[in-house]
Amino acid sequence: MTTPIRALLFDVFGTVVDWRTSVSGEIEALARSYGVEVDAPAMADVWRAEYQPAMEEIRQEKRPFEILDILHRENLERILPRFGLAEIYEEDKEKLNLCWHRLQGWSDSSEGLKALKRRFILATQSNGNIALIVNMAKGADLAWDVVLGAEVTGYYKPRPEAYDKACAQLNLPSEACMMVAAHNDDLVAARQQGMRTAFVCRPKEHGPNQKTDMEPTSNWDYVASSFTDLASQLKC
Amino acid sequence: MTTPIRALLFDVFGTVVDWRTSVSGEIEALARSYGVEVDAPAMADVWRAEYQPAMEEIRQEKRPFEILDILHRENLERILPRFGLAEIYEEDKEKLNLCWHRLQGWSDSSEGLKALKRRFILATQSNGNIALIVNMAKGADLAWDVVLGAEVTGYYKPRPEAYDKACAQLNLPSEACMMVAAHNDDLVAARQQGMRTAFVCRPKEHGPNQKTDMEPTSNWDYVASSFTDLASQLKC
Repeated sequence: MTTPIRALLFDVFGTVVDWRTSVSGEIEALARSYGVEVDAPAMADVWRAEYQPAMEEIRQEKRPFEILDILHRENLERILPRFGLAEIYEEDKEKLNLCWHRLQGWSDSSEGLKALKRRFILATQSNGNIALIVNMAKGADLAWDVVLGAEVTGYYKPRPEAYDKACAQLNLPSEACMMVAAHNDDLVAARQQGMRTAFVCRPKEHGPNQKTDMEPTSNWDYVASSFTDLASQLKC
Repeated sequence: MTTPIRALLFDVFGTVVDWRTSVSGEIEALARSYGVEVDAPAMADVWRAEYQPAMEEIRQEKRPFEILDILHRENLERILPRFGLAEIYEEDKEKLNLCWHRLQGWSDSSEGLKALKRRFILATQSNGNIALIVNMAKGADLAWDVVLGAEVTGYYKPRPEAYDKACAQLNLPSEACMMVAAHNDDLVAARQQGMRTAFVCRPKEHGPNQKTDMEPTSNWDYVASSFTDLASQLKC
């Protein structure tokens, strides 16, 4: 008999929220206020591209655990000069850095999560820190039951401990927990730890010319086009 | 100018849920199934009385941090013989131990939290572990934004770190966070760390003859008779 699924653990950036559109919008507004012209989506992409290398140092234990707000800020300092924004005020840097707390969901995210919440425990299993995830949830109406991931487990995905500890914190065997992500590599790592897997396709995460994660690369337990689709497949 | 309150951090056992009635009910049903007569409220009280001493060893760092499910189970083993229940099956012990995941709220808890959630971040700041708090929230319809406390901070209240880390995890100064509790001593400790304070009177937590925490013992920022009363004082 198959273990029933009790909890859904969500990747957040890209899977739940459209970081590129939100971040580009805030960059655009800031640059305009300084009279600087920037390619805002390009700057959002460059900022985001610093994300994995920054976490990688921590995954490899070359550096102690540090929350994402700090890594985002370090990465921002690194890229501002490339876009002619090195000289902006500290308060504007800090405000821009916290734009990750204000990301908006995909059009189905809020409604889909509410439907899924009726049957399942909804947890975030994100590399975002607690404040970031909580503030985002308030702003984008995301009905989490519990914030797990990075700061709570102390590990960045795809370290196996990140998945194992999250399931253990819910006091559930990993097969009762399903990882929901728009990224195949996140699901590979989750399946390795015994979790169930759901791929939700987000073909615009990286903009109109996205090449990666356009389709499932394995036989994931569920494949859906949105959270509302996933909810209906799961009979919520 | 006073810092606006952004987050409410709640004590849970006694403040949000009526542990004594719920635990007594489960003890009563279990004892009946074994044909054993017990004074169920008395056994609930005795079980609960083991709670502070068990955490105290951890607070004093005589023992590494251990989640409350484990402490509850050790305490249960200790008291079962006193109530003629030493010989019950393992699965019944485990089921009884998890009765703390099934506690029911006071009559105003669910509705009051929903009202408060419109204006504030609602966090648990309990000594309960994550799974306990999440399962309880699903069963008692408690609309938390985020589960903090014990397992997330790594400290049991009233250790100052428990309060400090919870506020830091929300990326808020302590004065933007208000501790909500039915226990004056919890508020004393929270105020010491710079948090705002709200006393919600729960005169039946310890049954009909309760003597403690029948009234506020200091000039707390708010004093309320229920969560709905607190919501109306806070203009939610």
